[in-house]
Amino acid sequence: MRSIIYTCLIIGSALVHADTHYQVLTSTKRDVNTENWNLSSSDFPEYKGKDRWSVSKRTLHGGKQEGVELIEVNNGKLQFRVIPTRGMSVLDVVHGDVRLGWNSPVKEVVHPSYINLHDRGGLGWLDGFNEWMVRCGLSFAGHPGEDKFINNVGAEATMNLTLHGKIGNIPASQVVVIVEKKSPHRIRIRGRINEVSFYGPNLSIWTEISTVPGSSAFRISDVLTNHGTFEEEFQIIYHANFGRPLLGEGAKLLTASSKIVPFNKNAAEAINEQRVYNAPTKGFTEEVFKIYPKSDEMGKTTALMINPKGDRGVSISWPVQQLPYLTQWKNTAAETTGYVTGIEPGTGFPHNRNYERKYGRVPKLAPGESRSFELDFKIHPSLKDVENATKKVNALQGAEPPKVHKNPEE
Amino acid sequence: MRSIIYTCLIIGSALVHADTHYQVLTSTKRDVNTENWNLSSSDFPEYKGKDRWSVSKRTLHGGKQEGVELIEVNNGKLQFRVIPTRGMSVLDVVHGDVRLGWNSPVKEVVHPSYINLHDRGGLGWLDGFNEWMVRCGLSFAGHPGEDKFINNVGAEATMNLTLHGKIGNIPASQVVVIVEKKSPHRIRIRGRINEVSFYGPNLSIWTEISTVPGSSAFRISDVLTNHGTFEEEFQIIYHANFGRPLLGEGAKLLTASSKIVPFNKNAAEAINEQRVYNAPTKGFTEEVFKIYPKSDEMGKTTALMINPKGDRGVSISWPVQQLPYLTQWKNTAAETTGYVTGIEPGTGFPHNRNYERKYGRVPKLAPGESRSFELDFKIHPSLKDVENATKKVNALQGAEPPKVHKNPEE
Amino acid sequence: MRSIIYTCLIIGSALVHADTHYQVLTSTKRDVNTENWNLSSSDFPEYKGKDRWSVSKRTLHGGKQEGVELIEVNNGKLQFRVIPTRGMSVLDVVHGDVRLGWNSPVKEVVHPSYINLHDRGGLGWLDGFNEWMVRCGLSFAGHPGEDKFINNVGAEATMNLTLHGKIGNIPASQVVVIVEKKSPHRIRIRGRINEVSFYGPNLSIWTEISTVPGSSAFRISDVLTNHGTFEEEFQIIYHANFGRPLLGEGAKLLTASSKIVPFNKNAAEAINEQRVYNAPTKGFTEEVFKIYPKSDEMGKTTALMINPKGDRGVSISWPVQQLPYLTQWKNTAAETTGYVTGIEPGTGFPHNRNYERKYGRVPKLAPGESRSFELDFKIHPSLKDVENATKKVNALQGAEPPKVHKNPEE
Repeated sequence: MRSIIYTCLIIGSALVHADTHYQVLTSTKRDVNTENWNLSSSDFPEYKGKDRWSVSKRTLHGGKQEGVELIEVNNGKLQFRVIPTRGMSVLDVVHGDVRLGWNSPVKEVVHPSYINLHDRGGLGWLDGFNEWMVRCGLSFAGHPGEDKFINNVGAEATMNLTLHGKIGNIPASQVVVIVEKKSPHRIRIRGRINEVSFYGPNLSIWTEISTVPGSSAFRISDVLTNHGTFEEEFQIIYHANFGRPLLGEGAKLLTASSKIVPFNKNAAEAINEQRVYNAPTKGFTEEVFKIYPKSDEMGKTTALMINPKGDRGVSISWPVQQLPYLTQWKNTAAETTGYVTGIEPGTGFPHNRNYERKYGRVPKLAPGESRSFELDFKIHPSLKDVENATKKVNALQGAEPPKVHKNPEE
Repeated sequence: MRSIIYTCLIIGSALVHADTHYQVLTSTKRDVNTENWNLSSSDFPEYKGKDRWSVSKRTLHGGKQEGVELIEVNNGKLQFRVIPTRGMSVLDVVHGDVRLGWNSPVKEVVHPSYINLHDRGGLGWLDGFNEWMVRCGLSFAGHPGEDKFINNVGAEATMNLTLHGKIGNIPASQVVVIVEKKSPHRIRIRGRINEVSFYGPNLSIWTEISTVPGSSAFRISDVLTNHGTFEEEFQIIYHANFGRPLLGEGAKLLTASSKIVPFNKNAAEAINEQRVYNAPTKGFTEEVFKIYPKSDEMGKTTALMINPKGDRGVSISWPVQQLPYLTQWKNTAAETTGYVTGIEPGTGFPHNRNYERKYGRVPKLAPGESRSFELDFKIHPSLKDVENATKKVNALQGAEPPKVHKNPEE
Repeated sequence: MRSIIYTCLIIGSALVHADTHYQVLTSTKRDVNTENWNLSSSDFPEYKGKDRWSVSKRTLHGGKQEGVELIEVNNGKLQFRVIPTRGMSVLDVVHGDVRLGWNSPVKEVVHPSYINLHDRGGLGWLDGFNEWMVRCGLSFAGHPGEDKFINNVGAEATMNLTLHGKIGNIPASQVVVIVEKKSPHRIRIRGRINEVSFYGPNLSIWTEISTVPGSSAFRISDVLTNHGTFEEEFQIIYHANFGRPLLGEGAKLLTASSKIVPFNKNAAEAINEQRVYNAPTKGFTEEVFKIYPKSDEMGKTTALMINPKGDRGVSISWPVQQLPYLTQWKNTAAETTGYVTGIEPGTGFPHNRNYERKYGRVPKLAPGESRSFELDFKIHPSLKDVENATKKVNALQGAEPPKVHKNPEE
């Protein structure tokens, strides 16, 4: 019955713009939420390409997944899954035998109503952590712990920040699928998430993940806006997580950087092996490295994750001005613990906001101001492709190696 | 499918009593919850009036609204919306160009499963705060902070009270629509909310909002009951919030009172301007005034909110014995912050319960005992109406002005 | 529409195994969740017995029950209800005029999304406590309070354990109904609940409750597994709760034990009356007794709850090696408070884990290791049956009475 009602609404919301096919899947303003939907190249007369693409939405059922929405995109070569219910996180990306993603002990796509971020001393976020890419933020990201804020009577009060903030556990209020009618027919999945409280921050982010039929690349293109009255702090970290098949003993992360600093004492002891990954190691404690990326003449930097054989990889490129800091999270623990590494461009590092503020890494947005974040991901499916990508990162690094700190600081 | 099952149940639950049309929309006892339903004067042979009225229920979708239920009442002249999922709060009331309500930065009608009352140092309630009228209570209302209670082993323990209590984020367990068959055909929306825990309080409230076809008035008529074994403390504040068009520079709150006390230092500095409202002011910090209302020979007091031009207003009348305290919350902040004032009759003021108890403003209910709260709201849509209402409040105040305290106390 | 989709899936999941009818009702892996379903002896050609049995599933609606799933089993003589949404708790068991269950002030079967375990100083679990049998655990059970754990950076951190742990408020990820085709046609309701967090415990429990058509007995048969990388602590308490008609003034709990210790000072004062129950007593504070059960030559012990007249009872038998401790929770408070006693076999007593660890009552599971828990329940519907059961418990106790401690310790 619900679906029938929706069908009517959906007809209304599949607007045929001049240049795009524009489909509203969710809109709290218009009281629309679509449980099941799909669109494919077959339905799309303007498309003459050879790669058969599709976009579909469905709703998961059972256990902690009950009611979780999933959008599945296949560009004919590359498939990815977006979770509107969990802040438009990207569950995984598949390209032939390359999978961006990892095997978390958390197997279900957990509905936010089952997450208490304050649980386990502020680590409740980890009860749902299994996505390839989850945004951390917006009002705060990083480690849990106390920070100050101004409360409802204008007084300074203390609150417990929780690990990596709220945005990954807020459902999108608006979700739109846009397909360009003209070649190259870019497919865009957009979702808006609001992080807002009365007497609190009023931030929103319009997320977009897009790809072109038949491509091995995709792009994340977000706009974060302060709708509040005052200048407002924000933090965002793109927490992209890689397990097998890219991660393995001898896998490497190549970056071009001016400086690399260990996050803590544990990381400091492993600083000499920062680039290379170990085999799964029972009892491994996370090692985190703070990388200050170098940019090319276009202002962009690139990080390159390569598999142990060197014949598969993925590169991430982004403007350094947008995301000036890169965190490498090594968690080469046992497979059952979660064998994974995070490559995490951000507006700061994942210390508690309190700490980040001290070191000038908590940016602010003026009222009404927006800031864009654009990340390009490209799969390198062959030795040749990986070699070419490696050359570019090495060229960007140039002759001068990064200053590698032996001790944690800042 | 679900709707089909419901249809059968609904037929069973639309009981035709002798004097009323009685429709059960929700009953946890009978396992009934109706997603979509409506009734209008056209379906009602007994109704001969000229004002076409209707009552309908629907369920919202998308974002944090997913699954939130809404009952919409139109008496032919006045429309209001009740939210069973959020403790029978009243989202807004509209009468011609007068709207009771305000523009919170929180735009969605937030499902309680997305609210953690303990978030943000006990201010999580503010994540869903955007209704015209929300009840605060029942076991506690007011500011967050520690208070004592007796725990499961009979020992005194400490708990963190959260801002304005739980009742506004508990879904109604029973919802009934009743329409009188005889003139004046009063339309009643009733909902019961239970605030109960094993080894904890066992309070419930039967809320009712009602109106008569064609009227400019409506009534809230609640019954709060202690189902527990022991005498039990309770608190209730009717947090009614007004933004534009009633609020504006020069808008006024007229009350008849014996005493007015500033809530804190910030309010104390503004005590001389207590009656009049400012234009939206960026950086304005809330000013709260504690008003001790005077009652007429029927035991009732009236507060009157008037727009800047003096040609639109709303009055609230209630028995002072039921709700002996009135809080005026001025929040004439920027529009983007939330330009709003609260007119809040209560069993106490919005200090923490711990503080209120000290000053004798935390009443108790004996086991099985109930207490009623009746508030009459009337829209004044013209200069003439506002003048008449003003006269009445002034007459109630009489020659003797309230004692206005210059400093916060009690 | 949703139901229609399900119907197709259900056909696929009603697998006809060689020896059993095997019905998947929920599977997060296969994205299946069935809203409404039933199976009865009439649908089952292999069944030739005279007792007409049935198993059905439905979904509750309204208030805090919205979306809660319920499985109802009738073996022809005995009926019980299982709540997949609440960790496969057993709501109640009915056998003629004997009901296993109690009258909690919490009347609704509360959806976990309405429970905040950290509420009320860690007593939020009590907001949903009304089942006949709820499992406490898995990572922790017992009283709330601080305990240490290892956090995401490998450091010791502090967390607040909440009353009786999480498992009772986690929905089952897999639910299966199995009916044996051969006599005695045992009916099994199985559900798997996962208690897992990244950088946290990774425990699961396959619960099973089963019965045979026409029987007065049923069995709980669970398997708890550590899927983690390391040895992991666990706790489980089978919190079975009995009100009227078994409980009443003069009702008795008979056990065979080597030692009985009062939980606290309050219990110590009542130690001489440990076996016998009082009438409902306003203001009664819980009395908890720690019982060390004796086992027979098969390693089993039995606890026997008898009504005041001695003509109705229920016995619980289990291997002492599996659950070496038995807690008796006397809460003979007023009916409105909850007149109830808990008979609670466990891996420990309900002190905080911190305390239990000190006294060696927090067992561990090696990685991949499982532990089974089997409890047999039998209704004794006549004086004769109760007398026979009494004899067995007395025989097990033998000549030597338990050592009864006068003071709380360990």
